[in-house]
Amino acid sequence: MRILILGGDGYLGWPTALRFSARGHEVTVVDNFSRRRWHEEAGTGSLTPIADLDARIAAWKESSGREIRSFVGAIEDGDFLDEVVAETRPEAVVHYGQQASAPYSMASREKAVETQHANVIGNLNLLFALRDHVPDCHLVKLGTMGEYGQPDIDIEEGYIEIEHKGRKDTLPFPKLPASLYHCSKVHDSTNIHFACRVWGLRATDLNQGVVYGIDTAETEGDERLITRFDYDEIFGTVLNRFCLQAVIGHPLTVYGAGHQTRGFLNIRDTIACVELAVANPAERGDFRVFNQFTEQFSVLELAELVKHAGEHLGYAVEIQHYENPRVEKEEHYYNAVHTKLLDLGLEPTLLGEELVESMIHIIERHKGNAIESSIDPRTRWNPAKSPAGQA
Amino acid sequence: MRILILGGDGYLGWPTALRFSARGHEVTVVDNFSRRRWHEEAGTGSLTPIADLDARIAAWKESSGREIRSFVGAIEDGDFLDEVVAETRPEAVVHYGQQASAPYSMASREKAVETQHANVIGNLNLLFALRDHVPDCHLVKLGTMGEYGQPDIDIEEGYIEIEHKGRKDTLPFPKLPASLYHCSKVHDSTNIHFACRVWGLRATDLNQGVVYGIDTAETEGDERLITRFDYDEIFGTVLNRFCLQAVIGHPLTVYGAGHQTRGFLNIRDTIACVELAVANPAERGDFRVFNQFTEQFSVLELAELVKHAGEHLGYAVEIQHYENPRVEKEEHYYNAVHTKLLDLGLEPTLLGEELVESMIHIIERHKGNAIESSIDPRTRWNPAKSPAGQA
Repeated sequence: MRILILGGDGYLGWPTALRFSARGHEVTVVDNFSRRRWHEEAGTGSLTPIADLDARIAAWKESSGREIRSFVGAIEDGDFLDEVVAETRPEAVVHYGQQASAPYSMASREKAVETQHANVIGNLNLLFALRDHVPDCHLVKLGTMGEYGQPDIDIEEGYIEIEHKGRKDTLPFPKLPASLYHCSKVHDSTNIHFACRVWGLRATDLNQGVVYGIDTAETEGDERLITRFDYDEIFGTVLNRFCLQAVIGHPLTVYGAGHQTRGFLNIRDTIACVELAVANPAERGDFRVFNQFTEQFSVLELAELVKHAGEHLGYAVEIQHYENPRVEKEEHYYNAVHTKLLDLGLEPTLLGEELVESMIHIIERHKGNAIESSIDPRTRWNPAKSPAGQA
Repeated sequence: MRILILGGDGYLGWPTALRFSARGHEVTVVDNFSRRRWHEEAGTGSLTPIADLDARIAAWKESSGREIRSFVGAIEDGDFLDEVVAETRPEAVVHYGQQASAPYSMASREKAVETQHANVIGNLNLLFALRDHVPDCHLVKLGTMGEYGQPDIDIEEGYIEIEHKGRKDTLPFPKLPASLYHCSKVHDSTNIHFACRVWGLRATDLNQGVVYGIDTAETEGDERLITRFDYDEIFGTVLNRFCLQAVIGHPLTVYGAGHQTRGFLNIRDTIACVELAVANPAERGDFRVFNQFTEQFSVLELAELVKHAGEHLGYAVEIQHYENPRVEKEEHYYNAVHTKLLDLGLEPTLLGEELVESMIHIIERHKGNAIESSIDPRTRWNPAKSPAGQA
């Protein structure tokens, strides 16, 4: 199968490319290295030493004998993306090629505009390229559970049947996005749904929870293939950040009370879910939405898990509550349905102390790269409120 | 009151500026003349001969003694808009400054991208400028009834109470936008709602129906103040287009069966609604949504009304069904609540033959400007379907 992976140099894009390549698919990756550039600008970087895309691709060829093709460019450039799609004629596109950090999108007007422009226009360019060149291609788009926010009802998978004044319809699930980045993902969902309705495209939106983990089947055992690992306040996600903090002796940075509850999944399950989506394409005209996570945890529960695992390995781990830099509910109802990927055969890799310990072991090998000053929360959702600091 | 009107050179923006100026408010308008430029590029234009913005402002000063201040620039330029807001410190912003044509947004990838970029980024820049300079300012944003599409349940004003699995919440009304332009308006609503929740801004989204009419209290009787009147397939709206067609002897262009039902309102009521919204601001942190229309009609009902009115004035008016260039339901349920503006005191100007005849009389004065070749539908929602033509 011809598979195009947008954002193929990223945390999830790279191991996804390896997986499809390992399975014998014809894989092309596109990236403009914006994540690497943003880190350079901020003086931060991946904990794991990631090779350049060309070097990674060469290492993969050496170890597997398989070729991955690459294009370097920005998908916001419609002509560039149009040419890539016309030339590669993908049967599936996996679209990770976006600015994916909520704090980055809230840091300034310029970064908010950059986020929404890159994400919305890049995705819109993709919809036109698919329509014009490969209308039968299956778009697998990475969305986020953060599109839904924290409604006071159960979260369904993309749609909800509403009975109202004696009539009934199944309509897009209402969204309360949690940042301007999350807003951009809601915009994408709206545009993709429209393209499926009007142009008959086929798409699956994977509304993903927070991903943790480092290794996948293809990257473990070959350091040249390792994927990036972010832990800083901008690009890091919570469980990865806690594991790094345990190793370097920094307090676990719990924002506010820590009762914020979200869906989580292992990076191995991300790859498995994307594989399942690609193997079971949406029908023409269908915009499917899968909630892609395996377990719900509160931030405090994760901190306690990492504390126990770290202490078991001999680390002294402290949990510290920071004034919450985000505007979000800290006490809320949260129950999100996530059965569609299980129905397709997903076998979850569940989180436990053993898994945290294995992450800690990988982190230990690279802890010398950690930039501790990049960890504490500084990016405030509402700068008019008092500055963030230790509570 | 200091009032900033974005898109103040437009069909609705200009008469809105005159109204607030006539009431003694301190009015500033911003425009980049994109509508005039798009017409120039397409070789089309306003039926009414509209003066340059400077000349209109001078004419208004001469006739009323009142000053309107103007800034020329694009709100997609965040620094420009930031400076305008910082300098004028508005107490209310009325935001019409967008690409507002559904067919324009569907004509090509480039025009779709231009539409979503201009609308989403312009509006996002505005939210930051309000946050940073005048967080107490009331944003009155022009939305559209086309954000909702045609759900099979009654359309509420922005929000709906949903009871689901034994729990209840009031959430944003689900959207099924009708074009990539309408998608951009949904994106704006999502961003504004977010800014109200997180930054405590105050905003009113006026989800407007299709506007018809030419004159308002301030423009009638002084041709130098007349507003633009579009009738072409890109920028014209249905009732205005039908009235022009009756006068120049072109068949009324009904798309498909003509049973598509929408909400409509007179341009005089648009101005009245915006006045009511400004006079009754939203609370801090509140994102209000008003459905701004006064009556529902099907396209065929309007065609028949114009046919009767035209024939009464001695015109031979033919109704012709064209293959529908849009992808839309032609038979559908439609019932949209619109009580909030009535509750604030709106007294609707209802549509009837007399009103159509008065529009026809104004059109007669300018019919020499009509470009008949710009009228028939050419812009197809799905170019993969057979070309549009006469059914």
